[in-house]
Amino acid sequence: MDRLSLFVLACLCLSSPAATAAAVRRQGPPSSLRFGPSGDFKILQVADMHYADGKSTPCEDVLPDQVRGCSDLNTSAFIRRMIRAERPDLVVFTGDNIYGFDSADAARSLESAFAPAMEAGLPWAAVLGNHDQEGTLSREGVMRHVVGMGGTLSRVNPEGVEIDGYGNYHVEVYGAVGSVVSNKSVVNLYFLDSGDYSTVAGVGGYGWIKASQQVWFKQTSDRLQREYMGQPEPQKEPAPGLVYFHIPLPEFASFDSSNFTGVRQEGISSASINSGFFTTMLEAGDVKAAFVGHDHINDFCGKLTGIHLCYAGGFGYHAYGKAGWSRRARVVYASLEKANDGGWGDVKSIKTWKRLDDEKLSTIDMQVLWSKGSPGE
Amino acid sequence: MDRLSLFVLACLCLSSPAATAAAVRRQGPPSSLRFGPSGDFKILQVADMHYADGKSTPCEDVLPDQVRGCSDLNTSAFIRRMIRAERPDLVVFTGDNIYGFDSADAARSLESAFAPAMEAGLPWAAVLGNHDQEGTLSREGVMRHVVGMGGTLSRVNPEGVEIDGYGNYHVEVYGAVGSVVSNKSVVNLYFLDSGDYSTVAGVGGYGWIKASQQVWFKQTSDRLQREYMGQPEPQKEPAPGLVYFHIPLPEFASFDSSNFTGVRQEGISSASINSGFFTTMLEAGDVKAAFVGHDHINDFCGKLTGIHLCYAGGFGYHAYGKAGWSRRARVVYASLEKANDGGWGDVKSIKTWKRLDDEKLSTIDMQVLWSKGSPGE
Repeated sequence: MDRLSLFVLACLCLSSPAATAAAVRRQGPPSSLRFGPSGDFKILQVADMHYADGKSTPCEDVLPDQVRGCSDLNTSAFIRRMIRAERPDLVVFTGDNIYGFDSADAARSLESAFAPAMEAGLPWAAVLGNHDQEGTLSREGVMRHVVGMGGTLSRVNPEGVEIDGYGNYHVEVYGAVGSVVSNKSVVNLYFLDSGDYSTVAGVGGYGWIKASQQVWFKQTSDRLQREYMGQPEPQKEPAPGLVYFHIPLPEFASFDSSNFTGVRQEGISSASINSGFFTTMLEAGDVKAAFVGHDHINDFCGKLTGIHLCYAGGFGYHAYGKAGWSRRARVVYASLEKANDGGWGDVKSIKTWKRLDDEKLSTIDMQVLWSKGSPGE
Repeated sequence: MDRLSLFVLACLCLSSPAATAAAVRRQGPPSSLRFGPSGDFKILQVADMHYADGKSTPCEDVLPDQVRGCSDLNTSAFIRRMIRAERPDLVVFTGDNIYGFDSADAARSLESAFAPAMEAGLPWAAVLGNHDQEGTLSREGVMRHVVGMGGTLSRVNPEGVEIDGYGNYHVEVYGAVGSVVSNKSVVNLYFLDSGDYSTVAGVGGYGWIKASQQVWFKQTSDRLQREYMGQPEPQKEPAPGLVYFHIPLPEFASFDSSNFTGVRQEGISSASINSGFFTTMLEAGDVKAAFVGHDHINDFCGKLTGIHLCYAGGFGYHAYGKAGWSRRARVVYASLEKANDGGWGDVKSIKTWKRLDDEKLSTIDMQVLWSKGSPGE
């Protein structure tokens, strides 16, 4: 579906006649999008841009003949190519959007990093990584700046809830206009702040998703499931949920090449202790996949007790990587079922693949994450 | 200290002049106890009584010459011996208090199981295991019945909080009368319901402590720390916290005989997934030890990133065990520091040991869990 119709349709589902596209994006929950007339919805995940100062910021880990003239601008060019090729309905940036240490002005780095999504008029959502706050803005400052940018669905935090971190919110994707689920969210997107580093004495390493965030997530999921399976037009099973954050869970270490699609070329840099978010996702019951970044040269997806755990693979050029191993992005594609009346129904399947920043933007590792009616295991 | 003075002293710290011992125990937070003039406070932990119908309920896993005449009454006799020998200030029952499957009347089993503590006039607290609800009462029913019994500090749940499970509450232990911390809780006891079995499709095994319980625990800990380190008489570090529940955390599997005191004679029957409570205890920062039951023939204590994880070892005779390996109980002993004026100060150290149900009630495995001013690691 095209961008304009997306926003127009998004507005149709709001109760307030004064609602505008901007209102859809930034005021009053829920932030919502909608499946278009083509019956599909596509999400482009961009992980670890590590954007700093643009043209003057060099590339890391590229082949010798790629070094010259390579900069943050290559990262931006890759986003633009991906948008042209995939025509996504939403772009999700899963943290380390900027590399604060090397950024002279965090606000400016953020503006440049997200510019390709804004230029394309695409709705976009971002969460924080562990490097975003290393520059001239704090974590809260970065998230507040992001929320004020054009076209974003990002929010700092849910209102009226005490919660850890910055950037915990959800986005609802409504059914197609004219379908029985046109007033229901048929795909739910959850965004969480997985923190930066441990602040607990004696515990090193990366941060984690705290209990307060998990309670918010679980309550939100419970409510969305009640609404989806309640009157009017009660549906039989919960709408699929997809979760985006930065740092992998310890459970990402459950896989090897025998049971994942993609590659594992480095260790799983999760927190050194387990804060239980995988368990909370299982309890919620609607989550089909969780998508992270953080480990740039891991790009696999593996399924554990019904939930796919997926890396995107590193996207940014001013970020460690592996020379000769293309920067990449993950695409998620949800398609609607045909209803008996010939119109659209609820979600039939969710697939994923990756695209490489090579000459052909090669598509690799297509896999089905979920199909309606198939067992969880 | 004797039982009577304990209750009298507990009343002194309440603001309401109409407060009674019963009010201390069952109405309005906080439930509180107090260090007595002797400057110490002792907790007896009784794990896995598995009480059913009394005299007609046989013992399991005892030596051939112990079978005859052995019943639930041996469990009660062991509690009475322990109370006489140790003179605890509080008895904590950490679940599987009754063995519901074999109980004809759950309420009656509960009354009999806790009778020795009540007869002794001792304050006591209980949490649920995975067998308590198998009889004529549900989990909620068991906990509601327990809360109505004499002398108990148990509560169903904190008021005004949506929380999973039944039996999540805390108890404050105030400093000695006349000391600078006489109006402060110098030891905090947390009690949680670790559930029974997984209800998540595709996930087998035992239950776990949910995010909602962890948020309540963390908020309670945060508040107690603010009060302890705030005006009047601000203290320099948080009061030590001790946590009691039934099912071991996955982190209990972190130890071997090289780094624990006691024995591991069976696997760690934790939940099959990690719900993050160990992480939440670390975040809280005040917890020095967590005490569980569930695995009857493990009785070790091991220290992980500053928190001791301790089994009590099986107590009850109508429960699996190991013939010839005595039923046992864990004692925790907190002692106060001498203040400069010769009176009592805050807590100096917390020790633990076990007692065996042999002829001499042998004391074994004494170890220091925490000393004031020593590093967490």
